[in-house]
Amino acid sequence: MDDHNYLEKILSEIEQGKISSKEGVEKLKYFSFEPIGDFAKIDHHRQLRTGFPEVIWSEGKTTEQIISIMQVMREKSPIVMATRLEPKIAKILQTQVHDLRYYPMAKIAAIGQNSVKYQGKILIVTAGTADLPVAEESAITAELCGFQVERLWDVGVAGIHRLLSHRHIIAEADVLIVVAGMEGALPSVVAGLASCPVIAVPTSIGYGASFGGLSALLTMLNSCATGIGVVNIDNGFGAAMLAGQILRLANKFSQS
Amino acid sequence: MDDHNYLEKILSEIEQGKISSKEGVEKLKYFSFEPIGDFAKIDHHRQLRTGFPEVIWSEGKTTEQIISIMQVMREKSPIVMATRLEPKIAKILQTQVHDLRYYPMAKIAAIGQNSVKYQGKILIVTAGTADLPVAEESAITAELCGFQVERLWDVGVAGIHRLLSHRHIIAEADVLIVVAGMEGALPSVVAGLASCPVIAVPTSIGYGASFGGLSALLTMLNSCATGIGVVNIDNGFGAAMLAGQILRLANKFSQS
Amino acid sequence: MDDHNYLEKILSEIEQGKISSKEGVEKLKYFSFEPIGDFAKIDHHRQLRTGFPEVIWSEGKTTEQIISIMQVMREKSPIVMATRLEPKIAKILQTQVHDLRYYPMAKIAAIGQNSVKYQGKILIVTAGTADLPVAEESAITAELCGFQVERLWDVGVAGIHRLLSHRHIIAEADVLIVVAGMEGALPSVVAGLASCPVIAVPTSIGYGASFGGLSALLTMLNSCATGIGVVNIDNGFGAAMLAGQILRLANKFSQS
Amino acid sequence: MDDHNYLEKILSEIEQGKISSKEGVEKLKYFSFEPIGDFAKIDHHRQLRTGFPEVIWSEGKTTEQIISIMQVMREKSPIVMATRLEPKIAKILQTQVHDLRYYPMAKIAAIGQNSVKYQGKILIVTAGTADLPVAEESAITAELCGFQVERLWDVGVAGIHRLLSHRHIIAEADVLIVVAGMEGALPSVVAGLASCPVIAVPTSIGYGASFGGLSALLTMLNSCATGIGVVNIDNGFGAAMLAGQILRLANKFSQS
Amino acid sequence: MDDHNYLEKILSEIEQGKISSKEGVEKLKYFSFEPIGDFAKIDHHRQLRTGFPEVIWSEGKTTEQIISIMQVMREKSPIVMATRLEPKIAKILQTQVHDLRYYPMAKIAAIGQNSVKYQGKILIVTAGTADLPVAEESAITAELCGFQVERLWDVGVAGIHRLLSHRHIIAEADVLIVVAGMEGALPSVVAGLASCPVIAVPTSIGYGASFGGLSALLTMLNSCATGIGVVNIDNGFGAAMLAGQILRLANKFSQS
Amino acid sequence: MDDHNYLEKILSEIEQGKISSKEGVEKLKYFSFEPIGDFAKIDHHRQLRTGFPEVIWSEGKTTEQIISIMQVMREKSPIVMATRLEPKIAKILQTQVHDLRYYPMAKIAAIGQNSVKYQGKILIVTAGTADLPVAEESAITAELCGFQVERLWDVGVAGIHRLLSHRHIIAEADVLIVVAGMEGALPSVVAGLASCPVIAVPTSIGYGASFGGLSALLTMLNSCATGIGVVNIDNGFGAAMLAGQILRLANKFSQS
Amino acid sequence: MDDHNYLEKILSEIEQGKISSKEGVEKLKYFSFEPIGDFAKIDHHRQLRTGFPEVIWSEGKTTEQIISIMQVMREKSPIVMATRLEPKIAKILQTQVHDLRYYPMAKIAAIGQNSVKYQGKILIVTAGTADLPVAEESAITAELCGFQVERLWDVGVAGIHRLLSHRHIIAEADVLIVVAGMEGALPSVVAGLASCPVIAVPTSIGYGASFGGLSALLTMLNSCATGIGVVNIDNGFGAAMLAGQILRLANKFSQS
Amino acid sequence: MDDHNYLEKILSEIEQGKISSKEGVEKLKYFSFEPIGDFAKIDHHRQLRTGFPEVIWSEGKTTEQIISIMQVMREKSPIVMATRLEPKIAKILQTQVHDLRYYPMAKIAAIGQNSVKYQGKILIVTAGTADLPVAEESAITAELCGFQVERLWDVGVAGIHRLLSHRHIIAEADVLIVVAGMEGALPSVVAGLASCPVIAVPTSIGYGASFGGLSALLTMLNSCATGIGVVNIDNGFGAAMLAGQILRLANKFSQS
Repeated sequence: MDDHNYLEKILSEIEQGKISSKEGVEKLKYFSFEPIGDFAKIDHHRQLRTGFPEVIWSEGKTTEQIISIMQVMREKSPIVMATRLEPKIAKILQTQVHDLRYYPMAKIAAIGQNSVKYQGKILIVTAGTADLPVAEESAITAELCGFQVERLWDVGVAGIHRLLSHRHIIAEADVLIVVAGMEGALPSVVAGLASCPVIAVPTSIGYGASFGGLSALLTMLNSCATGIGVVNIDNGFGAAMLAGQILRLANKFSQS
Repeated sequence: MDDHNYLEKILSEIEQGKISSKEGVEKLKYFSFEPIGDFAKIDHHRQLRTGFPEVIWSEGKTTEQIISIMQVMREKSPIVMATRLEPKIAKILQTQVHDLRYYPMAKIAAIGQNSVKYQGKILIVTAGTADLPVAEESAITAELCGFQVERLWDVGVAGIHRLLSHRHIIAEADVLIVVAGMEGALPSVVAGLASCPVIAVPTSIGYGASFGGLSALLTMLNSCATGIGVVNIDNGFGAAMLAGQILRLANKFSQS
Repeated sequence: MDDHNYLEKILSEIEQGKISSKEGVEKLKYFSFEPIGDFAKIDHHRQLRTGFPEVIWSEGKTTEQIISIMQVMREKSPIVMATRLEPKIAKILQTQVHDLRYYPMAKIAAIGQNSVKYQGKILIVTAGTADLPVAEESAITAELCGFQVERLWDVGVAGIHRLLSHRHIIAEADVLIVVAGMEGALPSVVAGLASCPVIAVPTSIGYGASFGGLSALLTMLNSCATGIGVVNIDNGFGAAMLAGQILRLANKFSQS
Repeated sequence: MDDHNYLEKILSEIEQGKISSKEGVEKLKYFSFEPIGDFAKIDHHRQLRTGFPEVIWSEGKTTEQIISIMQVMREKSPIVMATRLEPKIAKILQTQVHDLRYYPMAKIAAIGQNSVKYQGKILIVTAGTADLPVAEESAITAELCGFQVERLWDVGVAGIHRLLSHRHIIAEADVLIVVAGMEGALPSVVAGLASCPVIAVPTSIGYGASFGGLSALLTMLNSCATGIGVVNIDNGFGAAMLAGQILRLANKFSQS
Repeated sequence: MDDHNYLEKILSEIEQGKISSKEGVEKLKYFSFEPIGDFAKIDHHRQLRTGFPEVIWSEGKTTEQIISIMQVMREKSPIVMATRLEPKIAKILQTQVHDLRYYPMAKIAAIGQNSVKYQGKILIVTAGTADLPVAEESAITAELCGFQVERLWDVGVAGIHRLLSHRHIIAEADVLIVVAGMEGALPSVVAGLASCPVIAVPTSIGYGASFGGLSALLTMLNSCATGIGVVNIDNGFGAAMLAGQILRLANKFSQS
Repeated sequence: MDDHNYLEKILSEIEQGKISSKEGVEKLKYFSFEPIGDFAKIDHHRQLRTGFPEVIWSEGKTTEQIISIMQVMREKSPIVMATRLEPKIAKILQTQVHDLRYYPMAKIAAIGQNSVKYQGKILIVTAGTADLPVAEESAITAELCGFQVERLWDVGVAGIHRLLSHRHIIAEADVLIVVAGMEGALPSVVAGLASCPVIAVPTSIGYGASFGGLSALLTMLNSCATGIGVVNIDNGFGAAMLAGQILRLANKFSQS
Repeated sequence: MDDHNYLEKILSEIEQGKISSKEGVEKLKYFSFEPIGDFAKIDHHRQLRTGFPEVIWSEGKTTEQIISIMQVMREKSPIVMATRLEPKIAKILQTQVHDLRYYPMAKIAAIGQNSVKYQGKILIVTAGTADLPVAEESAITAELCGFQVERLWDVGVAGIHRLLSHRHIIAEADVLIVVAGMEGALPSVVAGLASCPVIAVPTSIGYGASFGGLSALLTMLNSCATGIGVVNIDNGFGAAMLAGQILRLANKFSQS
Repeated sequence: MDDHNYLEKILSEIEQGKISSKEGVEKLKYFSFEPIGDFAKIDHHRQLRTGFPEVIWSEGKTTEQIISIMQVMREKSPIVMATRLEPKIAKILQTQVHDLRYYPMAKIAAIGQNSVKYQGKILIVTAGTADLPVAEESAITAELCGFQVERLWDVGVAGIHRLLSHRHIIAEADVLIVVAGMEGALPSVVAGLASCPVIAVPTSIGYGASFGGLSALLTMLNSCATGIGVVNIDNGFGAAMLAGQILRLANKFSQS
């Protein structure tokens, strides 16, 4: 029942003397705040509907804060995850939070399981070995969200044959996440081989004029290949969420 | 004669004893170049399969170059478009290129029609009036590619009610392109209201510390909302292409 | 009558049979959008209550657009102003918009008068002659909003006596707007002499390592003096609006 | 002997014929030092008049220096505070400085009480949990200066309903301090909902392209909302001082 | 009546019994303005004492403003100069300002003669031909201030012998102004050959990664040679003024 | 024999009457002027020996200056060239400088012929059509210096097959100059395919976050491929000179 | 069995009637992967042909990873090296990797010997003592690749005679690697003295406005001397590889 | 007499038997090594003549290196100093280097005494307490070089009276070194009060948008006051050396 129908129903009940105007005010008081509660619900629904985990960004939070947020969240959500969690903190958490799993490369901790399984495959490609932690943040996030992930590591552009020998895997992906530091040229080349959406993740890997990932970021933004969306430096999590949104849309289409 | 046929022919000639296996090796050594043609075909197929127009980036090209590229492209593709085309040049083109349409706000010229029509809707949202040219570059590109576009102009975050009063439109979009200059905060707010992929386009609108769009770009990259992919400053075309790739994927899923 | 009372009144009228539920829905339909309409009203009220003019930022708008927006706005507001309006455009506007005044130094055009007059004085201080256009943008904006403005021009820090000889004027100001390009050091010194809020406006005046006002901007942000708020480079308008908000608050207090 | 007494003495000697007026001129030429003492006094008066605490910026000072400055200041002022004081140093200080209070989140130490209580309320709003230390620096500073502070934490723009559900609190504030890292979009949205002066504080919270708070800073400077003054990255203290100046002005108006 | 006369008048009235010392104190309390006049005088004296010309920075001033400032200044000073004056404006000025000389390369206009002649020589050295305008701004400024200037053009570091073949001239200079764009390496090499103060002037000559003179500026600031002071990009005038101050000091010493 | 011994020998021979003082002067003339004259000579010899043309950088020079420098240079060198020469100026030059050829795409003018022909081939590769002017500056420079140049245009990484289909040409090059704007990724890929020195030239082609070539420059500096030397943005000339030096060395080796 | 053999085998089988041409097509369809293997071989051949060592960039790799990569590489290559290896890790490696040598200044570890010895000499020049680690990374890399290296340390431009007194060494070099931090001016001067290719290596040595090597980098890119290729900040390894490529080319020419 | 004539004269004298070849060598030794030895000598003489200490920049040098350089230098120079020496290293040095003094605030170590005493006074002024280490580096360097130093600490522009009350000290200085972090505005104000050369030293003191001293540096470069030379961020040593050069010149003039 939408807002309009609800309003009609309440007013009709008053008219018919089923409820008093006072009771109506009480019911519609709620209604007047509704658009906000509505937003909140949308927000909540969105979480539930997507089945995406509740997520805690651990940076700048104390261990105590993380624990208590996790406890609250696990009540509401079948799956809870925390990103950017240092191994030391993870060790402490594991002694206090029941059933906590920790993925050290991705620096992600998780509780619970995701029951939703989406159709479609996210292929995650990295330029170098040093980009792995960011790529794994993407991979684990996507898997915890219910997506199938394929990993293609260490296929940087300086030895283009490494990439080309996997071009069929690239051609078959539904969404691509391409992770690269240093000059960050990989997404341009990959996007030229692919015919699906490409998410580019610059990493802070490099030295000197890489300026903490700025070089890779600019490369990706200036790509002459089309169909590329860029996320923040080292934001493996964000790339996975965008990939997830894309596949969720595709799943919605396939079900309609 | 394509690669496959050539290979068949050579092997058949060996089988029939017309040439020796050694001669065959010699001829097929050359054949190792083949996969390149293969790539070219993939590339070509991609164009055909997607039905996306052939595109000319007009900047830094002479009028003569644009005309001759258009003539060649129209042979191969039912639809050809040129972006970043100044009105003055467009006027000249229209006297020389048959059936050329020009979209002045978007600075796009096009020939032919796209026969493919995709399911799903791209909602393009702008923060201010001055962002319109970039938004129209997105809109016209998407429409020429065969997508349905809805426009929601001038709903910047400083008067949040303007945006909120259209939240149902946002909630119903399949892909969102959010265009904003100055502080570029709109994508963060929109992504919080939406549950679909969001493409953020920073524009160079602003002055002083906007530094030609850098401010809006950084805002979008640092968004605390998830599910956002960012393209280059003023890259309305690129945003449309990414949106197109996302919807094409969804259409593919819906057809499978 | 506030929202709650209005709701009670309508529902009571239905209960009493004064109006039908259908009429109630009609009346409350408006009410159901209320939270948005409410924002809109707040927004509108804010404009009315403050008596601040309706403002058009002219950059990136065509002459036609500016004219039609002005025509619409003058219906709603006793005073309408347009900023960043080039003299050439102003000349055209004056032939088509009735009673339009133009302030060439400030590049502001205005229609109508502000009837509100606020208590308190805004002192605008500039470092150099070249900063005048930005300072005048502040001054005219503030005057059009109903504030008293005093101007203190050309008292840059390199000849500190020029500033000191006016320290009583500074001490007596209610709000200070300090406008400076090049090294932008004036706000720091002025804030040390004043005991009222200081708004610092960096200008793009300078060359070489002033980097279009960046130097002045950084200086002002890093000021070791307290009580300074900084606005964007060349944003004389914004400084006046902040000064206006501060004095409006003070006027509200003085009336309560 | 202070300037005033010295002037009296010289003039008295002339009156008594002890020195000639010419000798007096000679001596009072030297008297040009006077205004300096005057400035110093103004400065001192300002401190006393405002009742604002004497403040020590602890960074780059040794524990010994901080202690001895505190001891001197407490003689002159009923309230002394030190900002940016690390917990370790605070512990040492507490063993040596009588009656020292420490606010760990705000990293502020204070001695004494502020007897002045100002009318009006400062509402401090933060985008995320990680912005709390900066926000608390603002809050504690404002409270130590004698202002009422209300806190509204964790209402970032990505979930706009969180902010909107508190819009009445925002509408009722007399001065707003809005604290945000990452994309720093919160002040734009808040300023659109408020009708009072807004002070924007960018924080260094974020990673990658946040470049230590630069992203949030640029966002705030480029805000399309009006009535916003920006302070340095992480400068919670400065924001509180500006808010204080604004409310002091309003209090002065209300008393006049 | 100036401050000095006023002071004499008051003291004389006390001496004469016309007013009491108490009345005098009252009147001279106001006299605390005095030092300001004093500063102004100091400032004026400085100008007179140094014999340096009164200078007008022409950028951002109208032709009318420049003319009227020149007229006023020529009353007070035997020599008046205007920098950064475009040839077009100079032509107009010459029709209206009596006896105006124009130095087109330096973009300086001047009236009158400097009677002071300082001992010592300023050697101005440039890296390339394109740096000449900045170097000439230095040279003409210094000459108008009464200094002897020697010019050494086009001795950039890429052909070090050109510089070395003039090393005796460098060794004999009293002050060096070294002007260079592009990589800006010349001051480092020159300072190694000289035993006098070196003033380094980066120019905006270059392209690409010279970023408008930033490259040359950074080079000069990071010089591993000692005894170098750097001025703003293209600030030939400022370099001459610093050189002038240095030689004025040396002349003062030689006369004492 | 070192300088000291040589000097002793000559002087001893004079003392012994073996040679006259005049002959000694002749022998030591070389010795005496050596350090400076030598450099000059080396410099001159270098020019002659390499057969590289005398070069004039036209930016910031008047037409008259260019003409007179050309006249002087043609006396000394069989070939003279001027870079960055606008077509308008070239037209004027052609009326006044005998036998001047102009290459409009490269913006190079030249007089005379280079008689030296070097062994080896420079392959110049560009990413896009808009990079042609920079590439042609390289090509014409190299040809005027006596090198064989092969051009491979428009093989950007977004369509990698275009590049791969020419990999034998790349493999056969002796030196590679790779010219690219926008994301500037081409040199990384090319260097991976080549086994010769690679010179990377970033161009200012692009918009938005390309920041005038900065993006391409950083990409090239951060390349994970080895054997790449980078020159300034748009510095086609410099790339050709470095390629020339490399091939001259190789020619020297092949002749020894 | 390599690709070539596989092709021969299939064709031979067809010739011999063992399989049909149709079966052959099926098997060789797979063969279209071939060129990839081809690339891989090219890559491998390049390594073998050049005799350059297999190289591991140690940053961001665990000790275990480095060890296992080394073990694998030593199977394939007579010489293996790892760069950017911290002394602590080196100590551990030496206990586990047989015959590992460590060069502490260069932070390079190596196994095995290079049997190739190239003709020609690389001269490595540094501006200051603090640039030594980067220079040694170049030197050791070059030596391990089979090149002769000469070192010229501490000849910065501020004392130009130090450099000039070695000008004969510079004149005799075949390739120059010039390493400098701070203002980075040395390559410009050296290139002016040399007539061979110059590779410039900016270092991060410096403070303040050196911005981690940015100053030196910009200087080198903007050099007015020709024949200079620049590598990334602190990239001694890359400079050696480029120098190696240049000399390998020269050796190839000398052998042809 | 130029070099050529001198050479003829010496050789002629040998020929005529007036001097022996050995005497000629002696005379021409000076002549022969001149171009290089001369520079070296000039360099050495410069050191001796100025009496400036030999200086070691300790950063990036091992304790052993510093000790051995000190030992060598103390042979040649009555006074040796090392800058940027951490207390820990200083402690070790004091056990091994005889008579070493350490100035902890300035982080300078020194051996020996400077016998030269120059006329004139360097006034060093700082904005804040945190700028002291840089100011002391200046002060101790200048004192070790034989100059009189006066210190004026903590007179930042936010409390301008603190500075003004010392304006006579400023007016009497011969050279001013002004040290400031944060907004770095002090040199502009001081230069307006002074009539002597001003050396501005930006410090890295500050946070947020001070960007490690960049803000203060830009402020100083953009100063609208004249007669200011700027040195690198935190370069107290360099400022003292420039001040020393200026005073040495003045002393030279006073002695001539």
